[in-house]
Amino acid sequence: MPKCNEGFSRLDGEYLFTKTKKAIEEYSLKHNGKKVISLGVGDVSLPLSPAVAKAFSSAARKMGNKEGFHGYAPYFGYDFLRRAIADDYKNKGVDVNESEIFVSDGAKRELSDFLSLFSKSTALIPTPSYPVYVDANIMRGNEILFLPTDESDGFIPSPEKIGKAESSDGYIIYLCSPSNPTGTVYSESVLSRWVEVALETGSVIIFDAAYERYITDGSVRTVYSVDGAKNCAVEICSLSKSAGFTGVRCGWTVVPEKLFMGGTGLNKLWQRRQSTAMNGVSYPVQAAAFAALTGKGRKQTEKAVSYYLKNAEILVNAVKNFGAEYYGGVNSPYVWLKCPRGLTGKEAFSTLLNEYGLVVTPGEGFGAGGENYIRLSALNTRQNTVSAAKRLAEFFN
Amino acid sequence: MPKCNEGFSRLDGEYLFTKTKKAIEEYSLKHNGKKVISLGVGDVSLPLSPAVAKAFSSAARKMGNKEGFHGYAPYFGYDFLRRAIADDYKNKGVDVNESEIFVSDGAKRELSDFLSLFSKSTALIPTPSYPVYVDANIMRGNEILFLPTDESDGFIPSPEKIGKAESSDGYIIYLCSPSNPTGTVYSESVLSRWVEVALETGSVIIFDAAYERYITDGSVRTVYSVDGAKNCAVEICSLSKSAGFTGVRCGWTVVPEKLFMGGTGLNKLWQRRQSTAMNGVSYPVQAAAFAALTGKGRKQTEKAVSYYLKNAEILVNAVKNFGAEYYGGVNSPYVWLKCPRGLTGKEAFSTLLNEYGLVVTPGEGFGAGGENYIRLSALNTRQNTVSAAKRLAEFFN
Repeated sequence: MPKCNEGFSRLDGEYLFTKTKKAIEEYSLKHNGKKVISLGVGDVSLPLSPAVAKAFSSAARKMGNKEGFHGYAPYFGYDFLRRAIADDYKNKGVDVNESEIFVSDGAKRELSDFLSLFSKSTALIPTPSYPVYVDANIMRGNEILFLPTDESDGFIPSPEKIGKAESSDGYIIYLCSPSNPTGTVYSESVLSRWVEVALETGSVIIFDAAYERYITDGSVRTVYSVDGAKNCAVEICSLSKSAGFTGVRCGWTVVPEKLFMGGTGLNKLWQRRQSTAMNGVSYPVQAAAFAALTGKGRKQTEKAVSYYLKNAEILVNAVKNFGAEYYGGVNSPYVWLKCPRGLTGKEAFSTLLNEYGLVVTPGEGFGAGGENYIRLSALNTRQNTVSAAKRLAEFFN
Repeated sequence: MPKCNEGFSRLDGEYLFTKTKKAIEEYSLKHNGKKVISLGVGDVSLPLSPAVAKAFSSAARKMGNKEGFHGYAPYFGYDFLRRAIADDYKNKGVDVNESEIFVSDGAKRELSDFLSLFSKSTALIPTPSYPVYVDANIMRGNEILFLPTDESDGFIPSPEKIGKAESSDGYIIYLCSPSNPTGTVYSESVLSRWVEVALETGSVIIFDAAYERYITDGSVRTVYSVDGAKNCAVEICSLSKSAGFTGVRCGWTVVPEKLFMGGTGLNKLWQRRQSTAMNGVSYPVQAAAFAALTGKGRKQTEKAVSYYLKNAEILVNAVKNFGAEYYGGVNSPYVWLKCPRGLTGKEAFSTLLNEYGLVVTPGEGFGAGGENYIRLSALNTRQNTVSAAKRLAEFFN
């Protein structure tokens, strides 16, 4: 039999969120199906905005008519959506060509698939971070260099720490701002330094901007705000948290025309990869995405983001009085909260689940630096968030 | 900069269908936008069946209500759909557990993604075949052993031809029945021999059953009709051609619990891979798929298949009188047609496009054995098919 990809044996047996889900099911079984409140997995709770649901269902209905039917979608997305995304970048003050935009079925797949363009490489992954970065690189057989962050650097990875790359090949550098799980936002100057380091070391940056729409304080929302980024960075975006698309599946990846690896343009390479290995994103889904980015739908989805940001504030306020240390909670749907009484993330997870019926994500799941933290998601309903905040206060008290 | 995946340099510059599309656009430019009839890319022409479009749009509409909203879908598909697919297998006379079924966004992605479970391997690919098999393996860095078929074996690959695998690792064997592009169907005995050879050589079969619903003569429609297949084969299915889902994106992959690679269960491995590298398929899409497999929707989609089969018959009848040699045209939406007058597939493609305004796919695009053939798709409308048939007759005359 062909040999198993060795990477799999280096993986933790289960994906983080599959594991926490099981712990919750066990709790539920033990407690006669008692419902817990979950601030764990970052799923959204608000339905799609009316204009978005309308566009989605109307396009789906028309798929039943000769005139409205759409077969294979263009591999890289419909022009109408690529244009709307390019306009969205204009709003953020940067120019991205439509030809640089690839419509996807969400960020998670892209973070992993993009690695297929490279031969075995070394990934540079700041931690704590989204576990998919690590798992995808392990499955691909890549080496990983971790760059742990902690309170001393405010959970913002310092480009100075990596210095010159040890190999002339540079790294595949993962950056995420606002960060999952810490909610911290990179300043323009930090981002500039990362771009400089990437250019110096011949590295490529995979910039995960899945949460950019939560930025309200004027911080940079795209890596392309920084000079030189088009020569070294791809940006992966998602409508999951901004427009409630966790169950719709749409996002996009920007691969600049100026991004070269040796003599090879990554934009062209990604075109070749995508036309071979996927068959486009459903037309009704792209119609829904278009509605989320334009006109009435855009305003409505902005309201949803404000709603979740208010939730984050409620969570923060509940623990602030106890002198709790936290990150995020503004510009992000996540609160990265230091456990009280020296508890580890896992201990806090367990106590919160079993004594308070509250689910959080233990910081350990995000790698080094997360040992004494838990991640709270502000994406639940207002009602559940208010209840959760009370339980948190009791836990801290 | 990290090094480019060497596989890409071994790829043909463009994906087959991207290339033919460009030739058509050039023709159209030269001829003042004159419309051609395309029997090229296998896209469907009928809209979604009424019951399917209704289920799709109704689920999409409900995504705008608190009660009907669905966030992240289960990684491997909703239970209701996995159950319907298991029932579908019961109709074909085989038992497949729900836990063996993984809902996907279509066959193309799966044919390529599944390779991630293996370390570098050797793929055994009968030709002519769907170009994705070759490209995906090249991109993965795998070796490829081609097994060309031709008129002498009726375009059915003989398992006898491979004998004992040269390496003890066996092969990743791609089989497709009804075949794309030749439309030929494997008999149960041929399939049995393939399963035997796979077991003997320690190979794994990737069985592409994307066209199984076109089988009307009682031939086997799933690899699991054959004893031992659960120990050596995964099956990749699609609703694209059976239910018009080319622009909806849904299918499934069966990974049997009994399928082991060394000591490693592939079912478990695929679970781990999918939970890390994708985020499920949209709920409205799965609701549409459910409608296509059950009740009224099922009957309606069966009618669409009959419609396309009638198209195939029309195409075949147009060339039969000229003594044309062909395969498929029954049990398949494809007619694999030998070019008249000793023309190559590329020559016939060019003449048909430029003199008859008719697009076909040149056989060369599917690899060795395709040099003197063209593939006709019967998935166009009746009206276009009838016109195309006339043009074909003129070409043969």
